[in-house]
Amino acid sequence: MQYRIEVTIGLKDGMLDPAAATIKKALEHLGYPTDSLQMQKKFIIDLNEASSDEAYGKVDEMCKRLLANPVIHNYNIVIEESV
Amino acid sequence: MQYRIEVTIGLKDGMLDPAAATIKKALEHLGYPTDSLQMQKKFIIDLNEASSDEAYGKVDEMCKRLLANPVIHNYNIVIEESV
Repeated sequence: MQYRIEVTIGLKDGMLDPAAATIKKALEHLGYPTDSLQMQKKFIIDLNEASSDEAYGKVDEMCKRLLANPVIHNYNIVIEESV
Repeated sequence: MQYRIEVTIGLKDGMLDPAAATIKKALEHLGYPTDSLQMQKKFIIDLNEASSDEAYGKVDEMCKRLLANPVIHNYNIVIEESV
């Protein structure tokens, strides 16, 4: 079965994000003040697995081993069957 | 009114993404072959505006002027009212 998996990776609460802070400040300078601005990374992965559980397991391992740093990142995995 | 806006920015179809290609290859080396892997950037912005139309307009300008490069990026804006 073909699955499309969306992985969203962001910093855990309380972690500093200088890149996001810089963009927030740049937007202010351009005349667009915001109350808060967070940045996340998103991966869209197409995978062929026997079941959605297996796809989830694979992607969870990918996150732990390469895509995210579990010490500082939260990640969220959303799976849907591709047509 | 307080709004939370999610902006997702990705490369247009046909644009090369060497970073995504590298991660795809690294996953293969770790034993996780994928059929395709795309990377996107996501901004979560909290904004105080009179209406969701105004919030949309502001964020659309932010994308055009700073967050995205309209020549190479597609972007998608999702607005919801914060409680």
